[in-house]
Amino acid sequence: MKNIILIGSGNVATEIGLFLFSNGYKIIQVWSRKITNAKVLSKKINSYPINNLSKIKKADLYIIAVKDDKIEYVVNNIQNKINNVVHTSGSTSINVFGNKFKNFGVFYPLQTFKKGNTLNTKEIPICIEANSENFQKKLMDFASNFSNNINLIDSHQRNIIHLAAVFSCNFTNHMFTISQKLLENSNIDFKILIPLIKQTILQIEKKHPSQLQTGPAARKDLKTIKNHLKSISDKEVKEIYHTLTNSIMNNE
Amino acid sequence: MKNIILIGSGNVATEIGLFLFSNGYKIIQVWSRKITNAKVLSKKINSYPINNLSKIKKADLYIIAVKDDKIEYVVNNIQNKINNVVHTSGSTSINVFGNKFKNFGVFYPLQTFKKGNTLNTKEIPICIEANSENFQKKLMDFASNFSNNINLIDSHQRNIIHLAAVFSCNFTNHMFTISQKLLENSNIDFKILIPLIKQTILQIEKKHPSQLQTGPAARKDLKTIKNHLKSISDKEVKEIYHTLTNSIMNNE
Repeated sequence: MKNIILIGSGNVATEIGLFLFSNGYKIIQVWSRKITNAKVLSKKINSYPINNLSKIKKADLYIIAVKDDKIEYVVNNIQNKINNVVHTSGSTSINVFGNKFKNFGVFYPLQTFKKGNTLNTKEIPICIEANSENFQKKLMDFASNFSNNINLIDSHQRNIIHLAAVFSCNFTNHMFTISQKLLENSNIDFKILIPLIKQTILQIEKKHPSQLQTGPAARKDLKTIKNHLKSISDKEVKEIYHTLTNSIMNNE
Repeated sequence: MKNIILIGSGNVATEIGLFLFSNGYKIIQVWSRKITNAKVLSKKINSYPINNLSKIKKADLYIIAVKDDKIEYVVNNIQNKINNVVHTSGSTSINVFGNKFKNFGVFYPLQTFKKGNTLNTKEIPICIEANSENFQKKLMDFASNFSNNINLIDSHQRNIIHLAAVFSCNFTNHMFTISQKLLENSNIDFKILIPLIKQTILQIEKKHPSQLQTGPAARKDLKTIKNHLKSISDKEVKEIYHTLTNSIMNNE
């Protein structure tokens, strides 16, 4: 699978495209609904921009990296033309392909993609699902160029991984944002917390997080909790403190 | 300040004691309410265990590292005997010392202390507060043996830092715990999330977290949010997802 067509031009498509190009793959076409977007990415990876799926050519692998709610549209408009197709979405089932293709599957890199960030790709877990053992094998071989961390994950599991990633990354980042605002209101730089945050992360590489809970809620230190709640003026932040403190207490 | 007395024998006292001892400080006494605890720590740092504050000797610096609600008890029982005293608590005001001492202050290392963990101490932020410029200078010189990251922080700011640390570390760890349970219920190892978590942390060293929010809530992807809520069976976890998603949406 050396000749690829990329369907999409967003963050995921861009990262995958750049990676494939720099590793000697040929990206035959880049499709985007907006031709200007297809052109931007094509230029970087020596490809050919299209905005009409009826113009799609032959390739060894078609990678659909569009927004989740656009996958179905793409699938419906390429079904008679192609084979060997994957999507890259965490929360979309493999069933989105129906049985319209001989070989179809999922190639889900578990990472936050931001245009312009260079990735240490070998660490990124790749979740693979396929409709046949033969195509599964092909996708695993393909993924091994990206990653040392390849996982066979079905659609239900992938959905749960995506949900867990929301808790571990999106919600965690929101905790940092709340901290940043609390600190800024008292003229303190958020950077003061970074060593502590790093330590928190180092620990979960060795032990499970459920064994590592510390803080006032874990030790049921009601005096400190009351004191903290008094220090929070924002109603929403107070509610979050309350909800999470109760949840930790119920888990200990 | 080379001759130290440690009041306390818990995680913080142990880490500070081990560090001071290995750096050539003399720990004259270790106090704990339970003499067995004082003995355990004393043995490690070539010190002398006591469980009676009336037996406290002369020293250059007294470090109170006991539970927050025991600080006042200690203060009341040493006030006529000593000078140069600090506590190590994030959420306790410097006012706990009243004006009972000539030199008093706070020496707050911003780190999670777990007995048995060796720390890269130079990175740990130390927050200093003192009742006089002279003692502040002494404490800063002392802290510079521990850390390259010394901060002058008043009691109000320290309380906010402690609160922000609850969000950034304790609540973050709880997010990891919820993820771990979600994954385990579907036979997936929590370790699959670690590269993604590491990436989340790497980013906040370069940009502020408020600029880095991603995920379904940030892009107001109601379809995925609905799908996630359907996948969560635990009522409490569902409420947390709901509360945090709304909060992110209100912030974007």
